[in-house]
Amino acid sequence: MRNGFLLIAIMAALSARAELVSKSVEYKQGETVLEGFSIYDAAVQGKRPGVLVVHQWMGLGDYERKRAALLARLGYNVFAVDIYGKGIRPRNPKEAGVEAGKYKNDRALLRARVRAGLEVLARQELTDPKRVAAIGYCFGGTTVLELARSGADLAGVVSFHGGLSSPTPGDAKHIKAKVLALHGADDPFVPAAEVAAFENEMRQGGVDWQLVAYGGAVHAFTDWDAGSDNTKGAAYNERADRRSWEAMKQFFAEIFK
Amino acid sequence: MRNGFLLIAIMAALSARAELVSKSVEYKQGETVLEGFSIYDAAVQGKRPGVLVVHQWMGLGDYERKRAALLARLGYNVFAVDIYGKGIRPRNPKEAGVEAGKYKNDRALLRARVRAGLEVLARQELTDPKRVAAIGYCFGGTTVLELARSGADLAGVVSFHGGLSSPTPGDAKHIKAKVLALHGADDPFVPAAEVAAFENEMRQGGVDWQLVAYGGAVHAFTDWDAGSDNTKGAAYNERADRRSWEAMKQFFAEIFK
Repeated sequence: MRNGFLLIAIMAALSARAELVSKSVEYKQGETVLEGFSIYDAAVQGKRPGVLVVHQWMGLGDYERKRAALLARLGYNVFAVDIYGKGIRPRNPKEAGVEAGKYKNDRALLRARVRAGLEVLARQELTDPKRVAAIGYCFGGTTVLELARSGADLAGVVSFHGGLSSPTPGDAKHIKAKVLALHGADDPFVPAAEVAAFENEMRQGGVDWQLVAYGGAVHAFTDWDAGSDNTKGAAYNERADRRSWEAMKQFFAEIFK
Repeated sequence: MRNGFLLIAIMAALSARAELVSKSVEYKQGETVLEGFSIYDAAVQGKRPGVLVVHQWMGLGDYERKRAALLARLGYNVFAVDIYGKGIRPRNPKEAGVEAGKYKNDRALLRARVRAGLEVLARQELTDPKRVAAIGYCFGGTTVLELARSGADLAGVVSFHGGLSSPTPGDAKHIKAKVLALHGADDPFVPAAEVAAFENEMRQGGVDWQLVAYGGAVHAFTDWDAGSDNTKGAAYNERADRRSWEAMKQFFAEIFK
């Protein structure tokens, strides 16, 4: 509106000053060595909210590093976790299904893996430990919900086209984080019955939750590399990508204030 | 974030300059005299997006005038329509049910009434006719969806806790507006089956649609006068009110750009 141009000009000027600093971080869960990715903007002073990023079923890769960089430009201290283990990166969907399946079928292990990453982020000097959130894509969306169900002390979690089912829905009562689920309304991998069960789980658990359904969006709607053919069940959707990113920013503005 | 304080300071300074100008507007649909409410910010220069506001089942009153003023402060040219007719203002929920029922059961009349209001807004000198949206609360939410189904040339419509059912779901194919439905996940007056039917209607019609479900919110969640007792099925919910208002602003930022 009337002040739009001025605000945009200021934000562009500040954004241009970003000095992103990134590094790989080795850490452990039990005896397993994991390799995450840390990134922040050195042009921002002092402690800042921390955002954990959990990868899709192909494991931590370029996609998650790009998302992490976008978040760092917003001023957050960002850590992209590694659930699978150092060097374990599926080469195709079949391998990814096997790898992701290990964790979907062992939620205790999944929780331990993501919690190990959360500890790395929480201990970093730049992280304001009272303002930490976790976001995840597909498999990562499922993972951040599982992290919340574990009772982790988080301000919020955001699932982008994540699977919403839980083998232990009663655990919702442990959730401290505010929950935002961003869902493709035509996602064949997260059907209506799963959405309804999730909503009921959240309701029964007394969780502060929201779910946004994006019309015309299927699975992986934020993944730039997912193609554009909805009939495959997974496809990039620019509109839903943009809107869900804005929804996340709005959510962060609320929970980090 | 880092620029948060600066932006807030600028916005507060600009917002303080608002000079709201309002007036009642008599207009007609057929032979029926209607009385709407027009409001804009005289501190804003030139043409601007127009926003139509459609009232709850009690008819156009203080609630809608306050919402209209909030929208005018955002820089829009705002017209709160009158669906019922000049002087027809139900005095209690029973009368409101009867009055609203007339229009819910005669969608052609409802469309004609809301279109008459849209014409008033579109003709106003301050309205940029290429950037017009409609929002509505409860009965008004139902109404703006019906307006969209009539094929009205709108950038978007937003329903706040509106009924989502349609006697003619095939009309969704006429929808030109982007559709945003903001829904209380525990609203007993808009049950899950109605939400599912709406989603399917939008899907079949090829509409650009989104639906946000707010956990813990029941009917009338934006109505400051609706009390706080969820067990009554209608209650104010500060969190869902704030979030849905932000969602609307985000939507407007997209459709009016």
